[in-house]
Amino acid sequence: MKRPQGLETFLTRIGRTLGNRVSTESEILTAAAGDESGLPDGMPSAVVKPLTVEEVSLVAREAHDLGVPLIARGGGTGKAGAGIPTEGEVVVDLTGMNKILEVRPQDLYAVVQPGVITRDLDRAANEHGLFYPPDPSSWESSTIGGNIATNAGGPRAVKYGVTQRYVWGLQMVLAGGEVIRTGKHSLKGVVGLDLTSLIVGSEGTLGLVTEATMHIIPAPRAVETAWLDFADVHVASKAAEKIFAAGFTPRMMELLDPVAIEVVRPKVAFPIDASAKACMLLESDGDAERAESDLLKMCEIAVEAGALNAIIGRSDKERDNLRRGRRLVSSSLKERYPLKFSDDIAVPRSRIADLLAQTATAAEKTGMRTAAYGHLGDGNLHINFLCESAEQRRSANVVRLELMKRVVSMGGTMSGEHGVGLTKRDELELEQSREVIALQRRIKGVFDPKNIMNPGKVWPLS
Amino acid sequence: MKRPQGLETFLTRIGRTLGNRVSTESEILTAAAGDESGLPDGMPSAVVKPLTVEEVSLVAREAHDLGVPLIARGGGTGKAGAGIPTEGEVVVDLTGMNKILEVRPQDLYAVVQPGVITRDLDRAANEHGLFYPPDPSSWESSTIGGNIATNAGGPRAVKYGVTQRYVWGLQMVLAGGEVIRTGKHSLKGVVGLDLTSLIVGSEGTLGLVTEATMHIIPAPRAVETAWLDFADVHVASKAAEKIFAAGFTPRMMELLDPVAIEVVRPKVAFPIDASAKACMLLESDGDAERAESDLLKMCEIAVEAGALNAIIGRSDKERDNLRRGRRLVSSSLKERYPLKFSDDIAVPRSRIADLLAQTATAAEKTGMRTAAYGHLGDGNLHINFLCESAEQRRSANVVRLELMKRVVSMGGTMSGEHGVGLTKRDELELEQSREVIALQRRIKGVFDPKNIMNPGKVWPLS
Repeated sequence: MKRPQGLETFLTRIGRTLGNRVSTESEILTAAAGDESGLPDGMPSAVVKPLTVEEVSLVAREAHDLGVPLIARGGGTGKAGAGIPTEGEVVVDLTGMNKILEVRPQDLYAVVQPGVITRDLDRAANEHGLFYPPDPSSWESSTIGGNIATNAGGPRAVKYGVTQRYVWGLQMVLAGGEVIRTGKHSLKGVVGLDLTSLIVGSEGTLGLVTEATMHIIPAPRAVETAWLDFADVHVASKAAEKIFAAGFTPRMMELLDPVAIEVVRPKVAFPIDASAKACMLLESDGDAERAESDLLKMCEIAVEAGALNAIIGRSDKERDNLRRGRRLVSSSLKERYPLKFSDDIAVPRSRIADLLAQTATAAEKTGMRTAAYGHLGDGNLHINFLCESAEQRRSANVVRLELMKRVVSMGGTMSGEHGVGLTKRDELELEQSREVIALQRRIKGVFDPKNIMNPGKVWPLS
Repeated sequence: MKRPQGLETFLTRIGRTLGNRVSTESEILTAAAGDESGLPDGMPSAVVKPLTVEEVSLVAREAHDLGVPLIARGGGTGKAGAGIPTEGEVVVDLTGMNKILEVRPQDLYAVVQPGVITRDLDRAANEHGLFYPPDPSSWESSTIGGNIATNAGGPRAVKYGVTQRYVWGLQMVLAGGEVIRTGKHSLKGVVGLDLTSLIVGSEGTLGLVTEATMHIIPAPRAVETAWLDFADVHVASKAAEKIFAAGFTPRMMELLDPVAIEVVRPKVAFPIDASAKACMLLESDGDAERAESDLLKMCEIAVEAGALNAIIGRSDKERDNLRRGRRLVSSSLKERYPLKFSDDIAVPRSRIADLLAQTATAAEKTGMRTAAYGHLGDGNLHINFLCESAEQRRSANVVRLELMKRVVSMGGTMSGEHGVGLTKRDELELEQSREVIALQRRIKGVFDPKNIMNPGKVWPLS
C-alpha cells in the first residue's frame, strides 16, 4: 500500500488535539512495526496514541473522512501478523488506555480499557478472591484489547474456555467515529444480534475497542500439578480420553512430543523417563482437598492407561519446576532451531496422535524434523517445523499446506487460538467456502464501508 | 402483511418436491400459529415440512426468488413471539429433521439436526457419561434449533453458561438457498469472524439452521439439592453474594419472592417457614463427596448470612420434591392469575433486591401485585405482572416499561434468556442505540437482502 493522499491532512487535523502523541519518528514507528508471528516487520507511516474514547473517535472520524487506514496495537504479542502495519497505515497505539475502571466482585465483572495488561486484570480480580481465566502465554505483556481482537486462548481454556466467554460487553469506535456499546453486565442477555461475540476475534477489522466489561469468576483455592511420561503420543492421547470419560475436566492438560522433550530435558529440575516419547503436564484446581484428590485420580487413570510414571509437585517450587518443563519448550526450540516456524491447529482430540504421526512422516521426507506441543486437552497443538536452512524453510511451506489440508479433512481448524492475520490469510479457502468468506467481507463492510480498519488482513486479497 | 403475489407459485414449485409436506389445511396452519409468549396467535399462509438440507435449500431459494417470507418453527415453546407467523408467511417446520447424526464422546461433541428435542440430546450424551448443560424449562419439547435461535438459558446456566457456549459449528441455509458451514469441531477455533456465535440468538432472522455441532461435557456423578428460607430478598441476595465470594459456583441458584412462595406453599411436600419472604433452591454437583460437601458448605454460608433454615434433599424423591417447589411457580401463578404476563430481565446480581422492591412499589400504585422468581445466581429473573382485569393489563404495560428503563439504568438487559421477538421489539431502543440497531439491520441485510427470513421481528418496524 502506498501513502494515502490524505495522510498529511489527517496527521495535522488530529495533531491539533493529540499533540505530540502523533508521531512519525522512526524510533517510534519501528517500535510499532512487528509482532511475534515471525513475519517481517512492516513500517507504518505514523503512530498515534489516544488516551480517551473521544480521541479514538476523532482519529477514526478523520481517518474515515480522509481514507487513512488504521491498525490497532496493544502489547504487540500477536502470533498471526494481524498487528503488522504496512506503509501508509497509521498505528493506533491503545496501550495508554490502560485503566481498570471498575471491579465489581459482587457482580463478577470488571470494566477495563483495552490497554490493560491481561495479567493485571487477573491480579485485580485476585484481590477479591476472583480470577480472570484466559491465560495466553504472553499474558504478562499482552493487552485485553489484543486478547479480544484474537479471542485469545491459553492452557486453562480446556476447563475455562477462551476470551469470548469472558467478554460481556464492549464499547467500540467505528470507522466514522461513532461510539457504540454492545452487550450487557450480566452472564445472560439475548437482546438482538450478539455483536459482542462477533467483534471478539475479529482481529481489528471491525473497529477500535475502547472499553470492555469482563467476567471474572471465583478463584479456586488450590492448584495441583503433575508431570507424566508416556511411551508415545497415542498412549498419552488415550489417557486423556479416559480422564475426560471418567468425568474430570483438568485445569490444564498439556502435551510434549519427543522433540519437545529432547530440548527441555537438559533444562528441567526433575527426571524425564529415558524412554518417554510423550509427556503430559496435568493440573487440577478447586479447594485443597478436591484439587489433590482430583489430580491423584487423574494420575491413576493415566497410569492405568499406560503412563510410565507420574511426578506430583509437592510445593509451589516443585509445581513451578514441572510447569517450566512445558513453559521452556517454545524458547528452547527457538534456540536450537532459529529458523523454525510454528503452526497452531486444532482437531477433535481423538485425531491428534494420527495427525502428529502423519505430519512427522511428511516432514521427514524433506529431511526436516517437526516438534509438537500444546493443549492436548482441547485438541489445540502448536506444530513446529524445525527448518535448518532457507531451503528447508521453503519446503516447510509445502508440508505446512499439507498439514492444513489434513487438519481440515479431520474436521479441525487451521487456527485454534492465534488467528488468521497474515499468516493464514492466503490459505483461508482451504477451510472456509467462498460464500462464508464473502459473507464475512460484507459484514466487515457494514462496520467499515471504506475498509480503513486493518485492511488486507484475514481475508484473501483477490 | 398481506399475501405475497408469488405465494401460489412458490407452493406449486416446492410442492413438486415436497408433495404433501406442503400444506394449507387450517388444522395444520393452526398448529403452527403460536408460541408460549402469551401473544395472540398469527395465522401463516402455509406450512412446509422439509426433511433434508436440500429441501430446505429449495424452499429458501424459491422463497427468495418469489419474495415469500419464511419463519422457522421448532417446538413452538418460544417466550418472545419470535415464532409467531403472520398472514402471507410460510412456516418452515423443522421438527421432521430430528436425527442425532453422530455422537463422538471421545471428542466431546454431537452433530444434530435442528428438530432434535433438547432433552434427547442430553439423553444421548448421558449414554456416554456426558451431558448437555443448557436446560430451558421447556427442554422436554423445545428443539435444539429453537434453542440456537434464542440462545436459550435455564437454571444450570449459572454454572454452565447458555446455549452459545455449546454451539461449535452450524450448517445454515441462507435466503437464496446457499448452504454454508460455520465454526469447528473443537473447543477452540479462531478463523475469521465468528459467524456461529452471531447466528446463535438471531431469532430466525439470518437463515435456517439445518445442522449443529454441539459440545457435550463430562456429567457430574451426583447432584445435591437444598431449599432455603429467608426473611427477605435482600438477605437471600446477600447470601448468594457470600456463596460466590467463598469460591463456590452452584449448579443452580433459584429464587422465589413472597408471592411466588404463596402460590406454591400449598402444593409442596416440605415445610416453608411461615415468615419466609424469599426462598432459594440451591444445587451443587460433582462426585458424590464433593457435591455433598459443597452443598453443606454453601448452606452453612447462607445460614451465617441469615437464612432461616435449610432443607437438604436426602433421596432422589426428596430432591425432586424440593425442585418441584421451584418448578410449580409458573403454572401456579397462571392458575391463580390467568391474565398475568411475565418479563425476563437480567441485572448485575447485587441490584436484584433493589429492582424487585422498586418494581413491586410501582406496581402497587396501580393496585396490581407482582411476583418474581428465577435465576438469582446469574441475575436473570422472571418478573410477573399479576393482572386481575383487562384494565390492569393495560396499566401493567406502563409498569413494565418503567421496569425495563430501570433495568437498563442498572446496567441490565431487557431480556436475559427469552429474546426480543415481538414482545420487546418496540422497546428495543430503551436498551440499544439507533446506531447499534442500524448495524444489526445491515448485518441482517448481508444474510438476507430481501428480508424474507422472519421479517418484522426483533427490530422496530419504523
